[in-house]
Amino acid sequence: MESLRAAWYMAAWRSDLPATGILPTLVLNERIVIYRGSSGKLFALEDRCAHKLAPLSFGQVEGDQLRCMYHGLKYNSSGQCIHIPGRESVPPAIRVKSYPVEEAHSAIWIWMGELARADAALIPPFQGTDHPDWAMIPGRMDYEANFSLINENLLDLSHVPFLHRNSFGGGRESPTMGGREAPVEKQETTELERGVRTFRTVENAPVPPFLREQSGPLADHVTTSDFLVPGVLLLTGELFKPGSLARSGGHRPDDDLLLHRNFSCQAVTPRTDRLTTYFYAFGPWRRHAAGAEMFAKIGAVAFEEDRAIINAQQKVMDASPGIKPMLLHMDSLAAKYNRVLQRLASTARPESAAT
Amino acid sequence: MESLRAAWYMAAWRSDLPATGILPTLVLNERIVIYRGSSGKLFALEDRCAHKLAPLSFGQVEGDQLRCMYHGLKYNSSGQCIHIPGRESVPPAIRVKSYPVEEAHSAIWIWMGELARADAALIPPFQGTDHPDWAMIPGRMDYEANFSLINENLLDLSHVPFLHRNSFGGGRESPTMGGREAPVEKQETTELERGVRTFRTVENAPVPPFLREQSGPLADHVTTSDFLVPGVLLLTGELFKPGSLARSGGHRPDDDLLLHRNFSCQAVTPRTDRLTTYFYAFGPWRRHAAGAEMFAKIGAVAFEEDRAIINAQQKVMDASPGIKPMLLHMDSLAAKYNRVLQRLASTARPESAAT
Amino acid sequence: MESLRAAWYMAAWRSDLPATGILPTLVLNERIVIYRGSSGKLFALEDRCAHKLAPLSFGQVEGDQLRCMYHGLKYNSSGQCIHIPGRESVPPAIRVKSYPVEEAHSAIWIWMGELARADAALIPPFQGTDHPDWAMIPGRMDYEANFSLINENLLDLSHVPFLHRNSFGGGRESPTMGGREAPVEKQETTELERGVRTFRTVENAPVPPFLREQSGPLADHVTTSDFLVPGVLLLTGELFKPGSLARSGGHRPDDDLLLHRNFSCQAVTPRTDRLTTYFYAFGPWRRHAAGAEMFAKIGAVAFEEDRAIINAQQKVMDASPGIKPMLLHMDSLAAKYNRVLQRLASTARPESAAT
Repeated sequence: MESLRAAWYMAAWRSDLPATGILPTLVLNERIVIYRGSSGKLFALEDRCAHKLAPLSFGQVEGDQLRCMYHGLKYNSSGQCIHIPGRESVPPAIRVKSYPVEEAHSAIWIWMGELARADAALIPPFQGTDHPDWAMIPGRMDYEANFSLINENLLDLSHVPFLHRNSFGGGRESPTMGGREAPVEKQETTELERGVRTFRTVENAPVPPFLREQSGPLADHVTTSDFLVPGVLLLTGELFKPGSLARSGGHRPDDDLLLHRNFSCQAVTPRTDRLTTYFYAFGPWRRHAAGAEMFAKIGAVAFEEDRAIINAQQKVMDASPGIKPMLLHMDSLAAKYNRVLQRLASTARPESAAT
Repeated sequence: MESLRAAWYMAAWRSDLPATGILPTLVLNERIVIYRGSSGKLFALEDRCAHKLAPLSFGQVEGDQLRCMYHGLKYNSSGQCIHIPGRESVPPAIRVKSYPVEEAHSAIWIWMGELARADAALIPPFQGTDHPDWAMIPGRMDYEANFSLINENLLDLSHVPFLHRNSFGGGRESPTMGGREAPVEKQETTELERGVRTFRTVENAPVPPFLREQSGPLADHVTTSDFLVPGVLLLTGELFKPGSLARSGGHRPDDDLLLHRNFSCQAVTPRTDRLTTYFYAFGPWRRHAAGAEMFAKIGAVAFEEDRAIINAQQKVMDASPGIKPMLLHMDSLAAKYNRVLQRLASTARPESAAT
Repeated sequence: MESLRAAWYMAAWRSDLPATGILPTLVLNERIVIYRGSSGKLFALEDRCAHKLAPLSFGQVEGDQLRCMYHGLKYNSSGQCIHIPGRESVPPAIRVKSYPVEEAHSAIWIWMGELARADAALIPPFQGTDHPDWAMIPGRMDYEANFSLINENLLDLSHVPFLHRNSFGGGRESPTMGGREAPVEKQETTELERGVRTFRTVENAPVPPFLREQSGPLADHVTTSDFLVPGVLLLTGELFKPGSLARSGGHRPDDDLLLHRNFSCQAVTPRTDRLTTYFYAFGPWRRHAAGAEMFAKIGAVAFEEDRAIINAQQKVMDASPGIKPMLLHMDSLAAKYNRVLQRLASTARPESAAT
């Protein structure tokens, strides 16, 4: 899986910006400093002074400008050096790269493609922790693995009953279900302009243990998930009264049959080839806000299960040159997403696709 | 020194197998999962699922089979995948390597050579911590060094009076002996089918400090050590009344002149090129079992002395490209053992010798 | 910036030599063991036994000789092996390199050039912590950076008002000065036989906060600094009554106008390409010895500011292949020092210059 340059990457939760207003970050192997100017706007520059290559993130904000605090060179928000202590004028060649940066959906997003093609309308329709419908607590973890292994994990939820048997538990063909026959899952996938959508239903299947008190032992499950470039998952899980799906002909049943609804938004940001940040939030519908803490805890346990096996998988892969993974039927959605990536890369400029 | 593939390597003490029955291990750079099936037998497979290369050691035992707990593929004990969730049949190509594995002498042994040539009769005649003659406590340590440096250390005990002057102490030309003349050591070495044997005697020499209370200040020393492929040391140390060797004509004296007897079994297992596990046990004859704790403590101190200097030696070697060690007279046993290795490698198949 | 082999490097403070009299060290990527013989003299040998390449620093001093405590080989102070246990004679080829080593100015110095050209008169005129004029406490820190970045830092003090605004503070164009106009600094530089000298004056400029109680808010500043091969800084800072420089015509004013005087000696020793030790001492004139602790504290804070940004700078540089620093006017002294290095390297033998 390749990464797409012409995309907005989540650099941080908005709440990660420290009081100094300066946040060093790393996206697609590029060191970037994000800072909030005195105008209140965010700016992003290459985190490397043109003089001695010291990081600008050790600097200080002055107005909407950023001063390197090694030898005092000052840059404006488009990366042009505008002052060198002890010199009258500044040669125009003394400048650093700037990046479009936007705040949206509780997060900070950076455009890694061609400057001229940055378009805030392409920011993924994330629904962050400040969204009125959901009660979610923000989380993050770093993987020592390539982003593509995490994306593949999120594009193939068939791992849930195995890997997450002790956290999310229950569901389809689960080893924790004893001798019971696995319920039949129906799944439809659709290609989107910038991603793939999946609509899954399972009739009359076990409810995950942590939801049984509220929703009872069995339910009709409906899951809708969008996976969008460059690595954003929006996942809504709903439980309906058993029999609802039969009556609705397999479509999403009416709200009055709803037992429970939850949501998760996740963003995968490649830092380096072997370091990836995974931002996540997972919580119940706002009217069940009292459960937000429990969801955050269960989510943290489950996401750590993913992290442990994927970090280990990366180590095995790195120790296995020449050994290729095999593609099985559960990998078809990842293949479809890969075709979307290729379409987007080919319509972008030559510089828009890179490893 | 090269490693021999056609050999049984000690992977672990039997007591290292956890309650889950699943033990990941690493031998000659190969990641292996050992598991105990419900039949009670041990099995060993390549620790890498054929699908996405996740480690099977994150899996779960089902009967004598092992299921990958990432996406649920199930393997039998010969490494064939026999079930993929959501699929009726399994292509025969979905399989992983299996390894012969045996329990013997308190330890778990893995055969790294050609499958068809595995022969339990070739397991080294280790005498483990469950042997009725000796009172020993198992130990292990990891070296950040190539196994060959450790083997060379065990094949040249002339280092003992220098490196171990503060632990095993005393003996031949020891700096701790003050002005006393070094006693003369006699040594005979014999080539074995799969190793080398050394018989050493020293007459009327100082007893190591930790044994003086029991055995007095001076004794005739008799040491018999076998060093066997792929890196197993069996060492018996005995002290006899001074004058015993003179009366026996240099042969091992009769048991009624014995003052003390102890034994050590050690196994050197290459993990990677720069990581080696050293398994050891060291203790007195069972009738002195009360001393087992003291031997374990002194052994741990002495083996840590080896580890410190060998890890440092490896660092110096790695920082000294082009600088070769010199072979001196004390390296002759290592040279003899190397010839045994070469003979065994040449009678094995081409695949049997590797770095 | 290249390193010069034909020079004395500071290996350690004299007080770093442990009670065993044996100190392993690393200079220009060479592992060296320094030891004090029973004659009281210091010696330095390659830290690598010729036999198995174990470090001699694990050994023990015997007279003015050093014995390897792995297998007992003994070396004299010029590196010749003079005894191998169990052998009558020693082949002359069994020897290690020796290095000229001297104690001077509270420190231990090693000559890394050609043996025959070692000349104690070339030891830098360091003034250590035992110098009668100054009250200084020795310090050291290790950088994970190439030595040249540290030398460049010491050769361009224009970074002080920016990087050290919260420690040394005040002075010339300082961001902490509020709206005040930067005072004009005058600077003269002179090429020395083995370095460069700078004489700086600033009239009527703010006194650093930590000296204001003693010296008042404004003073005439006079700074004299020598930067000598292979990386030694001797820096004297003086404050005079405002107006003193105007009366003396810009020369150093008379002592009776002196408000304060302090001194710092620093030595930069390359260990490896990315590890450098920075030895430092910073303190007031002996008659203000009561302030020694405060100077040590402020110095440690300021030197840690250097270390943090230079370690970060090195990381950015290593992640930026092909990106070159730009030379600005404040880099002219470093350029002059580089020419001195090149002159010294070219008059030395071919072996005298290396990275």
